[in-house]
Amino acid sequence: MLIVRKYGGTSVGDADRIRHVARKLAAAWREGNELVVVLSAMGKTTDELIAKAKEIAPDASKREMDMLLATGEQISVALCAMALGELGVPAISLNAFQVRMHTTSAYGNARFKKIDTERIRHELEAKKVVLVTGFQGVNKYDDVTTLGRGGSDTTAVALAAALQADLCEIYTDVDGIYTADPRIVPTARKLDEITYDEMLNLATLGAGVLHNRSVELAKKYGIPLVLRSSLSDAEGTVLKEEVKVERMLVSGVALDKTVDRVSVAGIPDRPGSAFRLFDLLARNRINIDVIVQSAGHDGKQEISFTIAEADAQTVEKLLSENRKKLGFDSFVIDRDIAKVSIVGAGMISHPGIASKVFEALFNVGVNIEMITTSEIRISVIIAKDQADRACRAVHDMFITED
Amino acid sequence: MLIVRKYGGTSVGDADRIRHVARKLAAAWREGNELVVVLSAMGKTTDELIAKAKEIAPDASKREMDMLLATGEQISVALCAMALGELGVPAISLNAFQVRMHTTSAYGNARFKKIDTERIRHELEAKKVVLVTGFQGVNKYDDVTTLGRGGSDTTAVALAAALQADLCEIYTDVDGIYTADPRIVPTARKLDEITYDEMLNLATLGAGVLHNRSVELAKKYGIPLVLRSSLSDAEGTVLKEEVKVERMLVSGVALDKTVDRVSVAGIPDRPGSAFRLFDLLARNRINIDVIVQSAGHDGKQEISFTIAEADAQTVEKLLSENRKKLGFDSFVIDRDIAKVSIVGAGMISHPGIASKVFEALFNVGVNIEMITTSEIRISVIIAKDQADRACRAVHDMFITED
Repeated sequence: MLIVRKYGGTSVGDADRIRHVARKLAAAWREGNELVVVLSAMGKTTDELIAKAKEIAPDASKREMDMLLATGEQISVALCAMALGELGVPAISLNAFQVRMHTTSAYGNARFKKIDTERIRHELEAKKVVLVTGFQGVNKYDDVTTLGRGGSDTTAVALAAALQADLCEIYTDVDGIYTADPRIVPTARKLDEITYDEMLNLATLGAGVLHNRSVELAKKYGIPLVLRSSLSDAEGTVLKEEVKVERMLVSGVALDKTVDRVSVAGIPDRPGSAFRLFDLLARNRINIDVIVQSAGHDGKQEISFTIAEADAQTVEKLLSENRKKLGFDSFVIDRDIAKVSIVGAGMISHPGIASKVFEALFNVGVNIEMITTSEIRISVIIAKDQADRACRAVHDMFITED
Repeated sequence: MLIVRKYGGTSVGDADRIRHVARKLAAAWREGNELVVVLSAMGKTTDELIAKAKEIAPDASKREMDMLLATGEQISVALCAMALGELGVPAISLNAFQVRMHTTSAYGNARFKKIDTERIRHELEAKKVVLVTGFQGVNKYDDVTTLGRGGSDTTAVALAAALQADLCEIYTDVDGIYTADPRIVPTARKLDEITYDEMLNLATLGAGVLHNRSVELAKKYGIPLVLRSSLSDAEGTVLKEEVKVERMLVSGVALDKTVDRVSVAGIPDRPGSAFRLFDLLARNRINIDVIVQSAGHDGKQEISFTIAEADAQTVEKLLSENRKKLGFDSFVIDRDIAKVSIVGAGMISHPGIASKVFEALFNVGVNIEMITTSEIRISVIIAKDQADRACRAVHDMFITED
């Protein structure tokens, strides 16, 4: 079986852990598998390199930052190849130049365009374990690029697609996808399977164990993706296009406490008013999520929507500066809210989920301030201090224990 | 002027020193020079990477060791490019893949075969300072190689040759070539100029501030090479093919305390005996230097020669194992010797130097145990505890103070 495996920075954090990873790889190789292994930089390496750069140039060029950061993964793959050598397993490390991992030009946030497989296939034919630097590529100027957050996961899935691998395994420090955050919901349990779409929704909603870009890529090329722990032998969670029919209606409950609600009052009740408001935000790259528009009185209306906490300052500035131009009376940003979402591919064919959510929250005295639904998810906006309780109530309403 | 500059690991040892180097480069660039800058890894980086490797694999593959070590110089060039950016100087870092520095295949000890100049020239035309990783190359398998000791000096000279640079400057923590080690000979003084050949002899003889390979390369391509300090503004020493005629007979005195003398007694006095001895040592990669052969008695002879201290154990083993085969009676290794050499291009046309060396040493009561001469140098083997005294006496006999 041709397997692409990825180990994150914690999994290769020191010499002992690298040896541990090498033993796992040696076992899989001895079973006759072909292995392509993507590694992140060791533990805190990337943070240390960023600190060095900041000391020298607080506003360093992104091109040079990528050149600097790419060394981290190269150290990991070289050391891991040595560890495999010690175990008598032939192994070879390759960087983005050697594989020829072509990306777009955007330093710090590049995307793969094309990955050559010739060198990797050549090394696999020589029965070697191939270790590839995650998180990086080479652009059309022959410069090093990095992929941004979740980059090494994306490298693994992209390689699996290019090599038409049988399986892509993402090893991390959690042992799978849970129906909710176990720290908040004690009854949360690990899922054996989940669809790509469900995972995409969960990731967007704050359960981000896998970066969306890698899940999108896996979905696009139909790569079976497994998320499992590098510290235990637990089975992990398989991501695929469809999961078995007897499964639950809802696959997971996500909680996001990093949202704020913006309420804009006194907007002129005529065509284009709302459009001009949202257009202003879009042009300033502000993502908005749940929107509620209410007819007001005296020819005025009110619009509320949620934004990421990190964008609150920018939004405050934008609205203050454009109040007259947009013609509204006032606005307020509420930071004490949270978003609870339930996600499940089975919801499409089951109406009435929303009312069950209302019921669950009513039972524990939580007031719903806003609500939004899509084919496979329902999100509610509630008070932040009621979020954990709400999350547990919704989870236990829909997800039964094994 | 197109200048290739090299800064060693101490010169880029921390953020402050990198900023200092960047300021120097900015000044030279603002004067209108085209700059190609070769950097070593920061301070102890290479040692730390080697330690990490040893922890994981005491006997790591050289191919993977090169992949690991090459990250050190990449960190240096990226950080220095950032520091130049902060000073408003356009700069770009390039690694061996990007420049296309083709080397032989020998991991850990590769030699340059061909260096492409297209990318560097392109960046110079864009008025950028070009920062290139020292010490590394890429071989025909598209694998990273390193050049071994003195590698970054070699990178600088090789780049200067490929680019037909006007000058190659090697910045280090000494401010030039001295007529002797100033710690031993207080009257030692810095040379303004020295020929490539004199430098080659001095380097071999223990005054190793510049690696021989880089001097050989500079000589081959006639690159004017300047050695100067990154910490002071002193003029440094220029290496060239010929130096001005009014110069001194002797350009330097070198002292090497890391030699041992091997004396082999009772060798059969017939053709081939000595050959078989030296052939055995050559096949085991033992370099021998000064040789004295003395006719003995009873059809036997004695041969003495010097070896590097580091080879003593190997030689002891080889001679013990092959005593019967080679037919000699006994051998002894004397560790308490040293080699003092005087080097000077002017010696070729001045006979009688040897007798002046004898005179100088006789004056301070030093006994010469062995002597060897070549066109531009004379070496004497003496007792180690008399070495410093001998060095001062010979230096002051030939080299006058300014």
